Amino acid sequence: MSERELSQFSQTLQTPTEGERAAQWVLNAPEPPGLWRELVNSTKEIVLPNGNKSKSSGEHSKSRRMVSVLESVFPILVWSRTYTANKFKKDLMAGLTLASLCIPQSIGYATLAKLAPQHGLYTNVVPPIIYAFMGSSREIAIGPVAVVSLLISSMVQKVQDPEADPIAYRNLVFTVTLFAGIFQAAFGLLRLGFLVDFLSHAVIVGFMAGAAIVIGLQQLKGLLGITYSTNKTDIISVLAAVFKSLFHNPWSPYNFVLGCSFLCFLLLMRIVGRRNKKLFWLPAIAPLVSVVISTLIVYLTRADKHGVKIVKHIKSGLNPISVHQLQLNDPHATDLVKIGAIVAVVALTEAIAVGRSFATIKGYHLDGNKEMLSMGVMNIAGSLSSCYVATGSFSRTAVNFSAGCETVVSNIVMVITVIISLEALTRLLYFTPNAILASIIISALPGLIDVHEAYNIYKVDKLDFLALIGAFFGVLFCSVEIGLLVAVAMSFAKIIISSIQPGIETLGKVPGTDIFCDVNQYPMAVMLPGVLSVRIKSPLFCFANATFIRERISKWAIEKEEMDAKGIVKAKGKIQLVVLDMTNLTNIDTTGLATLEELYEQLLSQGIMLAITNPKWQVVHKLKVSNLVKKIGGRVFLTIGEAADACLGHRMHV
Amino acid sequence: MSERELSQFSQTLQTPTEGERAAQWVLNAPEPPGLWRELVNSTKEIVLPNGNKSKSSGEHSKSRRMVSVLESVFPILVWSRTYTANKFKKDLMAGLTLASLCIPQSIGYATLAKLAPQHGLYTNVVPPIIYAFMGSSREIAIGPVAVVSLLISSMVQKVQDPEADPIAYRNLVFTVTLFAGIFQAAFGLLRLGFLVDFLSHAVIVGFMAGAAIVIGLQQLKGLLGITYSTNKTDIISVLAAVFKSLFHNPWSPYNFVLGCSFLCFLLLMRIVGRRNKKLFWLPAIAPLVSVVISTLIVYLTRADKHGVKIVKHIKSGLNPISVHQLQLNDPHATDLVKIGAIVAVVALTEAIAVGRSFATIKGYHLDGNKEMLSMGVMNIAGSLSSCYVATGSFSRTAVNFSAGCETVVSNIVMVITVIISLEALTRLLYFTPNAILASIIISALPGLIDVHEAYNIYKVDKLDFLALIGAFFGVLFCSVEIGLLVAVAMSFAKIIISSIQPGIETLGKVPGTDIFCDVNQYPMAVMLPGVLSVRIKSPLFCFANATFIRERISKWAIEKEEMDAKGIVKAKGKIQLVVLDMTNLTNIDTTGLATLEELYEQLLSQGIMLAITNPKWQVVHKLKVSNLVKKIGGRVFLTIGEAADACLGHRMHV
Repeated sequence: MSERELSQFSQTLQTPTEGERAAQWVLNAPEPPGLWRELVNSTKEIVLPNGNKSKSSGEHSKSRRMVSVLESVFPILVWSRTYTANKFKKDLMAGLTLASLCIPQSIGYATLAKLAPQHGLYTNVVPPIIYAFMGSSREIAIGPVAVVSLLISSMVQKVQDPEADPIAYRNLVFTVTLFAGIFQAAFGLLRLGFLVDFLSHAVIVGFMAGAAIVIGLQQLKGLLGITYSTNKTDIISVLAAVFKSLFHNPWSPYNFVLGCSFLCFLLLMRIVGRRNKKLFWLPAIAPLVSVVISTLIVYLTRADKHGVKIVKHIKSGLNPISVHQLQLNDPHATDLVKIGAIVAVVALTEAIAVGRSFATIKGYHLDGNKEMLSMGVMNIAGSLSSCYVATGSFSRTAVNFSAGCETVVSNIVMVITVIISLEALTRLLYFTPNAILASIIISALPGLIDVHEAYNIYKVDKLDFLALIGAFFGVLFCSVEIGLLVAVAMSFAKIIISSIQPGIETLGKVPGTDIFCDVNQYPMAVMLPGVLSVRIKSPLFCFANATFIRERISKWAIEKEEMDAKGIVKAKGKIQLVVLDMTNLTNIDTTGLATLEELYEQLLSQGIMLAITNPKWQVVHKLKVSNLVKKIGGRVFLTIGEAADACLGHRMHV
Repeated sequence: MSERELSQFSQTLQTPTEGERAAQWVLNAPEPPGLWRELVNSTKEIVLPNGNKSKSSGEHSKSRRMVSVLESVFPILVWSRTYTANKFKKDLMAGLTLASLCIPQSIGYATLAKLAPQHGLYTNVVPPIIYAFMGSSREIAIGPVAVVSLLISSMVQKVQDPEADPIAYRNLVFTVTLFAGIFQAAFGLLRLGFLVDFLSHAVIVGFMAGAAIVIGLQQLKGLLGITYSTNKTDIISVLAAVFKSLFHNPWSPYNFVLGCSFLCFLLLMRIVGRRNKKLFWLPAIAPLVSVVISTLIVYLTRADKHGVKIVKHIKSGLNPISVHQLQLNDPHATDLVKIGAIVAVVALTEAIAVGRSFATIKGYHLDGNKEMLSMGVMNIAGSLSSCYVATGSFSRTAVNFSAGCETVVSNIVMVITVIISLEALTRLLYFTPNAILASIIISALPGLIDVHEAYNIYKVDKLDFLALIGAFFGVLFCSVEIGLLVAVAMSFAKIIISSIQPGIETLGKVPGTDIFCDVNQYPMAVMLPGVLSVRIKSPLFCFANATFIRERISKWAIEKEEMDAKGIVKAKGKIQLVVLDMTNLTNIDTTGLATLEELYEQLLSQGIMLAITNPKWQVVHKLKVSNLVKKIGGRVFLTIGEAADACLGHRMHV
């Protein structure tokens, strides 16, 4: 016997003891933390702030701790120390570009939210200022956005018709804003940032695209200069109302001609700006240019006397206080709270998606919880000063970024410009045609429809794409809320489906390793003779899939010859041992445990042994507590090789 | 250099090539089946019958195939060949015992279903006969059961008040029975047996216990001889109605005295039967004895003139045909279909649970789909012959089993006895007091409340126990449907929670093996120096947990020293490599993929590498399609050891 053979021999001798020891380890693992302990721990992990770093420091650092808390709440205290004139120059330019885009846009969005135009401008004053002090994103542009405006009008008008009583409607919108702000701040304080994650990426893409089309449809009213009365937002009702209005009421084609020609101009500028990154300012100032030119045209030709609808009076002056207009004792208060919660989540989803994507480009990290807190505070402040819900805008943030902004100072510059316009320039907007505002909103919509991403999702994950389509059609053909509901429901249905899909895969040994893998994924893997090793595909072995899995395994093991012929199971020799690999299994419930016992008895009656390998912590605990380990003769092992060694006595290393 | 050292050296040289080969295998796995293909396959697996064995046989076997189909539909053709006189003697005894129990019980259940008493007896005639020919369980006792009776009355009376128009109500019940039968047969034919599995074991235990208490409350009416008018079944409404009735209406204490004394007798017999297995027939015939004695007492004392409520007239004669009483064009037809579906599932759940548990005791296997088909056919036939929904009864099946039944012939004996009673004995039941029927139902209820099993569930799985409690209180304090709804909702909520729990575990190498396991479960596992290997606990890396998991991993890796001090991460040396083990991961969605990319970039900015090990088939496909493999530098390996070897260049075998 050569030394090498000897060493191999000694290894073979050593293996069973090692194997036995490993099997002992499986069964003698310490008890996993109980449900209560786990709940407390995971709540702690989620809720508690990241670092209570300065806990150990003494008295003298009290003031320092105070400063660090202040700095964490108001990041402006940190970055303002290194703020330079050079940075300010860039922010000034970005802020002015931003203002030229936001003034016409926010008047349009206010109309979309069925509020008076000045409320759009107000919303561009208070929230951005607050955010500038508290927020940590450097590029985000705060203000009213299209989707949130649509969401608010479509939900609040079910409680109060804005045509019948615009003042009551407006007060309800302020109240919703307050609730939304409170929810957002609470999410931030309680560190419930993960709530925003409950809308999956795919579903947001679908929802945004659907919302963009719905918003576009709403603009037909302004673009055609017609009036109709439907509170529904789905494509069929709106188109029906538009056609009915076109055929039954007189309408002036001037609106359409004016709106369309400027829409073409805006879209052209957009394309130019896309092609040539240096001309980014062209699409940014195009809306303001259109407003100025069209207003001049209407003023000079007095086209408003020929049927062109104009904005008319916009109240000038700064935000009035709206504390006394909040309707906290309204009979519909519970509805308003519900709307507030939905709006809060949608607004945060958009803002955090925007903030994160630009933070990643610039290579810094945004704390979701801190962002939520600042958004909440800014909306609470907004609700007290005649604003409606503000959030981070996709299109304006992109413009801000392209314009080279360095810090949120660009938002402050924008606010100052808006204040000046509110004080001095609102009268100049008297003759601005509604059709121009509609075309400005429409021109911003293509940014919300991300066909490229939808295609990517289709390529990577068909079920995700299905959720996307569901959200899209839900918004388009039913309503914004139904779309959201479909979105959330489909996200969760997908989770359930992939958790309980009743599938099993046969495992084989990957040559050159001790690892057992799916024989379909790794065609080179070989099955051990006489052993059927299967792994449950789903993470749960529970009431919903246990019976099916049991039947499949027992059929594969017992009717092996037949399966062999069909090519499903390719084991050599008669099956003597079924090894159930539990690596995948996150959890098992009482039905699953009972089913395992049934499986054991069924196999036993056919003279086949059952062994279990690599159960997780929670699973092995349950197997022990329910006495199943004892019932199946203690055949619980760490690896499939060990199980085969121990049960059949042959060497898998041979 | 000795030979042994040489062989070791050559092994070390060989390992990297093997490792590289394994890594290649991971990335070059064949494409997994697409969504469509998987859907078709899994539908096939679920829907198609088990064996199309005789496909290859020629013309001559046509008649044989015919016979085998007939034999599979009517198992009686198979077992009747080996039926002996000895077996019949046992079945005769069991059948007579069964009849003595079922006659009083089914009159009581008919009252619970708010039908005339004879319908309970009818339901004990047609369905058991049909089942005897088609069913494959040998012990099950078919007939009306308490929970289904309660379910029918509580749901149908919302459509039609049984007090106002008992005939219309009865016709609706027949229609519901027809729909339930059609659903059951369809489930069987389409092989949707898994639908029954959608009520988890724990939830059934809770639901049954709640229903038992509700049924007991319903019996207070009969036990106290009072009348009240509430259609609600929750404990509070019923108790309120009972107290109101007790204080405002005259009632005779004789009912209560009579009912309670016989209830004590019945419960005593039950206890005696439990203690001494040979006296099983005592609790079985006790109900009939009580009926006979109490009827005699009432008849002799004419107690009905002193306020004792009696059954009065029971229509004699066999089941009348009820084809023309089915209300298929009823305006409430959709409600009836819905009720039919719910009743179908609940009835099947009970029957299959009963059938399976006794089949396991006797060591044979029940085909769920075939059972469903026979239950469906028997209920369709029942609906045409004045029966309501029949299913397998817990209590009577146990009696049948204890009485030593051999085949379903015991059911046929029972049917003949019931037919004789219907023809000849119904007039004798005129003076039977209602209180006795109530006490017979109450005495059967303890069998539905399984405290022992509830405690077992509590011990094994706290979340399952929570679902149990939810179903229990839902039935008790709201309604039967709410209880069912809570049951199903909690079952699925549990699935979602365990699928998306955002946890990660650190892995260490188990000494003596190449396997990496959770360091908390296996405290002897050692972490590789400079490597943080983590495994995602949940089976999905998706929108609902991706952000949280990413933050946790990057925090553990980047703020390692601090974590070290807290004892969370016990790695040696500065982290140079994070290995993300994907063994657990069943699926990843587009949000998950985007998050992985973010994590990679975040770690890269800190000089830490990211490697992925052992992704599943679907996951590795998605990683490839979304270009993520390329983006993270191709660092995808089969095992953690390999990943460490390849990325850090040190040997884990050393």
